[in-house]
Amino acid sequence: MTVRRIEVREKVMAKNDELAADVRRRLAESGVPSLNLVSSPGSGKTSLLERTLDALGSTLRMAVVTGDVQTQNDADRLAARTDRLVQAVVTGGACHMDARQVSSALEEIDLEDTDLLFVENVGNLVCPASWDLGENAKVVIFSVTEGEDKPLKYPRMFERSEYCVINKTDLLPYLPFDMSRAVEYARQVNPGLRFFHTSALTGEGMEEWYRFILQLAGVTEEAPA
Amino acid sequence: MTVRRIEVREKVMAKNDELAADVRRRLAESGVPSLNLVSSPGSGKTSLLERTLDALGSTLRMAVVTGDVQTQNDADRLAARTDRLVQAVVTGGACHMDARQVSSALEEIDLEDTDLLFVENVGNLVCPASWDLGENAKVVIFSVTEGEDKPLKYPRMFERSEYCVINKTDLLPYLPFDMSRAVEYARQVNPGLRFFHTSALTGEGMEEWYRFILQLAGVTEEAPA
Repeated sequence: MTVRRIEVREKVMAKNDELAADVRRRLAESGVPSLNLVSSPGSGKTSLLERTLDALGSTLRMAVVTGDVQTQNDADRLAARTDRLVQAVVTGGACHMDARQVSSALEEIDLEDTDLLFVENVGNLVCPASWDLGENAKVVIFSVTEGEDKPLKYPRMFERSEYCVINKTDLLPYLPFDMSRAVEYARQVNPGLRFFHTSALTGEGMEEWYRFILQLAGVTEEAPA
Repeated sequence: MTVRRIEVREKVMAKNDELAADVRRRLAESGVPSLNLVSSPGSGKTSLLERTLDALGSTLRMAVVTGDVQTQNDADRLAARTDRLVQAVVTGGACHMDARQVSSALEEIDLEDTDLLFVENVGNLVCPASWDLGENAKVVIFSVTEGEDKPLKYPRMFERSEYCVINKTDLLPYLPFDMSRAVEYARQVNPGLRFFHTSALTGEGMEEWYRFILQLAGVTEEAPA
């Protein structure tokens, strides 16, 4: 029983990896770098994207593929800010996006007219870690309200990410949260992580994130103030 | 391929339901009510339990089964407060607890010497919704920092819960969070939900939760102030 289950899972994962490789190839051919945003529910992925689209929308042509277990709330929020948005069909109850969904979404995006692709994954710190979507890098967002030990408790997600956005820094004065300990824990899991400290609500710390996005997209101008 | 995958999944779920029914029967025979605490990572499950064990530990004999993807941080925090704690083995990367883990954990708990059982699930608003652990009821905890729309975005968890703890109310003055809208969204998904509004950090609102716990355990005294 268990053996059979593992075997089936391996086949599903292998098929996903194949599709992810194809997504990666298509994006590379069009020169479109891509980031897969992963986090707990409510860490601020959508708010981070909203701010980024607002701030850089006149400079960068950014496309977004968003997946949600239910509702199109996020898609509605983002659609107001970009005409390159595709909501991936995440069937009721699925706990992660897969490469097939991104692959289908790309059919609806003119990659030759796009500078950068964001994928906003399902809010879940466990399952999306195992699913390659063909992105260049995963960005794990975690908010200071979640406690310092999240990197230790959900290590795979932090291991597989290249960037870590520590969000909701505007709440730091009201929380027993030790930022240096949080960073230390995350580095224990993944010494190569690059950090951003942001408040997507107030805009605090977003400039560094914008500079990173502009660099990733190959735009050399400074980010808007 | 897909058909086979679904078939395997159904067998696994059916086996889980069988084990959950057995857990439920054993708990009922010993007169031990049980709550399965589910939430996003960092919503405050462990803090809620810490406060509850501190406040009611002299009145109620509470056992805790805790599951974590990695680390035994939560277990260490709770072990300081109860000698009826069992950490379930949640193998690296698993995204939920299953009934087999609770069933094994019960072997280590003297149910005849226990008034109430808490199960602290893996932090994940998606997957644990589908796994019956044999509990009397699920308690979904969500924190005001996560945004009002979580019940709409993760409806299955709110549908399958009987109680909803809205936590971290101490942060309300610093957040754009509309409590009545959050409650309205949760009621849209599950009109029968009973709500608690708490700050497990400051203790605000915990009295009503304590009264509920004491009632559930069949203790008629008022909760300590």
